[in-house]
Amino acid sequence: MPTTRLDRLLAALRARSLSGVALMPDANLAYLSGIAFHHGKRLTLLLIPADGAKPCFVIPALEQTQAEANSQMELRYFPWADADGPAAALAAAVEAAFGPNAHGLSLAVEHTSMRVMELRALEAAVPGLRTHDATPLFAELRMAKDEQELAAMEQAVRIIELALARAIKQIRPGRTERELSRILSDEVIAAGGDGESFANLIASGPNAANPHHHNSDRPFQAGDLIVIDCGARYGGYISDITRTVAVGEPSEEARRIYDLVLSANEAGRRAARPEATGAEIDAATRSVIAAGGYGDYFIHRTGHGIGLETHELPNIVAGNDEPLEPGTTFTVEPGIYVPGLTGVRIEDNMVITSGGARSLTSFARELIVIPA
Amino acid sequence: MPTTRLDRLLAALRARSLSGVALMPDANLAYLSGIAFHHGKRLTLLLIPADGAKPCFVIPALEQTQAEANSQMELRYFPWADADGPAAALAAAVEAAFGPNAHGLSLAVEHTSMRVMELRALEAAVPGLRTHDATPLFAELRMAKDEQELAAMEQAVRIIELALARAIKQIRPGRTERELSRILSDEVIAAGGDGESFANLIASGPNAANPHHHNSDRPFQAGDLIVIDCGARYGGYISDITRTVAVGEPSEEARRIYDLVLSANEAGRRAARPEATGAEIDAATRSVIAAGGYGDYFIHRTGHGIGLETHELPNIVAGNDEPLEPGTTFTVEPGIYVPGLTGVRIEDNMVITSGGARSLTSFARELIVIPA
Repeated sequence: MPTTRLDRLLAALRARSLSGVALMPDANLAYLSGIAFHHGKRLTLLLIPADGAKPCFVIPALEQTQAEANSQMELRYFPWADADGPAAALAAAVEAAFGPNAHGLSLAVEHTSMRVMELRALEAAVPGLRTHDATPLFAELRMAKDEQELAAMEQAVRIIELALARAIKQIRPGRTERELSRILSDEVIAAGGDGESFANLIASGPNAANPHHHNSDRPFQAGDLIVIDCGARYGGYISDITRTVAVGEPSEEARRIYDLVLSANEAGRRAARPEATGAEIDAATRSVIAAGGYGDYFIHRTGHGIGLETHELPNIVAGNDEPLEPGTTFTVEPGIYVPGLTGVRIEDNMVITSGGARSLTSFARELIVIPA
Repeated sequence: MPTTRLDRLLAALRARSLSGVALMPDANLAYLSGIAFHHGKRLTLLLIPADGAKPCFVIPALEQTQAEANSQMELRYFPWADADGPAAALAAAVEAAFGPNAHGLSLAVEHTSMRVMELRALEAAVPGLRTHDATPLFAELRMAKDEQELAAMEQAVRIIELALARAIKQIRPGRTERELSRILSDEVIAAGGDGESFANLIASGPNAANPHHHNSDRPFQAGDLIVIDCGARYGGYISDITRTVAVGEPSEEARRIYDLVLSANEAGRRAARPEATGAEIDAATRSVIAAGGYGDYFIHRTGHGIGLETHELPNIVAGNDEPLEPGTTFTVEPGIYVPGLTGVRIEDNMVITSGGARSLTSFARELIVIPA
């Protein structure tokens, strides 16, 4: 029998002497069970005992049918109705999963997903509960993608590259950021995506200097650079690409900034190989930009892991000295942001291979100049 | 000087003998400051001391410019960079907000928004921290809407009713749930919405029996009922409406179910008045459906509060015995879901007035039959 994702999780829990894990309806649960959920306000927790006993799912009653239809795991269900609240269902599930003496359990919980609501409910159900962050444990399981996962990501890349090409063709002076956002969003669906990985970002002219700009009604005009950051979802996996285009001939400084970011992007991609660390790849892009005199304007990390989520581990940042293993997928996205003036970011999706690394994204990186 | 939202918060904190509140970048922070945020993975916390000292904002460095541009509150900023992490910025903010001896503070935190990540970071910064759920405190502040808030909600209702009317005109046999979803989503933008309040739900034929259905590629066909649950955002506020339409003449049972849900919706709206409770309004819809013989198929609460968020307090559900005050806005959305067969939900947005209540939504409630 092949080793399943659940087997690997149980081994990791036992290696850490944990009693089990309590999962939110989020990416880790989808990874294990295939169940994709709206992350609502109703308490929903999957309890997985490390000893291999059947996982117990505390779930709003009205979600049970859908969960049963989608789950690839055998689960025991503990549904609860709005009028009753979740406490009794949670208590019953804890007893079923961990036995009648659940005092002082050590449970892994997801620090970036579990809310205080679920934590306090667990603490009430398990006197003396000790919790540990499940994030590194699941990062270890999920960081290196298998062939099936990579195939879904490559399809998500093909979709976003097709949509982006079609959207760029529709840029013209006078069209606004929000109009282009809508066009791009429609093109993702037309290209076969299940949707966008995240709300796309269209930052034009001085707005391009804000890496987390909210799309506005600003119309494009001659002299603009436009940063376009977007992605597609396909089969549960995502892509995440950024290109910066010009409306009319850019200024000399804008062109210089563009070329510098492009060199940094190339240096980052070149630095990717098995056993390279996030810190090394970050240093590779950062040193190019610093040498060009714009070090103070590169105000975020070089990249982040991608897969089921738009932001997962590893972080491509100073201080991350974990060597990257084959199958690891992440972004390389250096940028320069000059307040009041302009900004440029060029982002690709990389995968570490056994002999090196390759970019999943292949969209042209030379500056596209749209007639003004 | 008029009493501000911040003044009312400070009074509520002091009435509960709390040292202050730690807010996530979410609806409560938007309510107080006007700052709307992507809820990302980077630690972002606004610390508001109950004594009226200036609030301290721990924020990723790359978000600071945007926050400063949008904030209607005076704040002290404690930015942190990716390479450094948030711990030092948080420690400095705690000291600035609460003084050098922060041991044993009592802070309100949002149980349905704060994650274990932020809680553990606060616990590390404040030895002996005691936390209290901020949810009831903010519900008290936010539940009754002022005129400006109601005006935004009425505009959000006008937008979704226009978009829904246009989308229903485009329903025809062979068109799929996802196609209609896309049309509706575009119509919300075309009607002047800032976007949808939530991913719309289109559940046709047997799918209508699942109140939390995920839109599929199922084509509409004669005999379908289609549940359409959707909303628009405008000026930070939302609308949330459901109508159920038929493709071709519905079966006798489908028609009976529709009429029963419509009667329940009417009973729920009639039960709304000042000092009515969520439990009473829930009982009003539920008793109609139970009397019709479908009590076991009404598997969710009657409704929920709306405003800045699609789901806020009050819950319109058994057990909620708090009297509703004028200005309170909420949904009335009874439904019947018969597995394998069909489902119906009819949802309106209500506001309690000084003399009674009125429906913000006025979209026709009679069954619309689309030619098959």
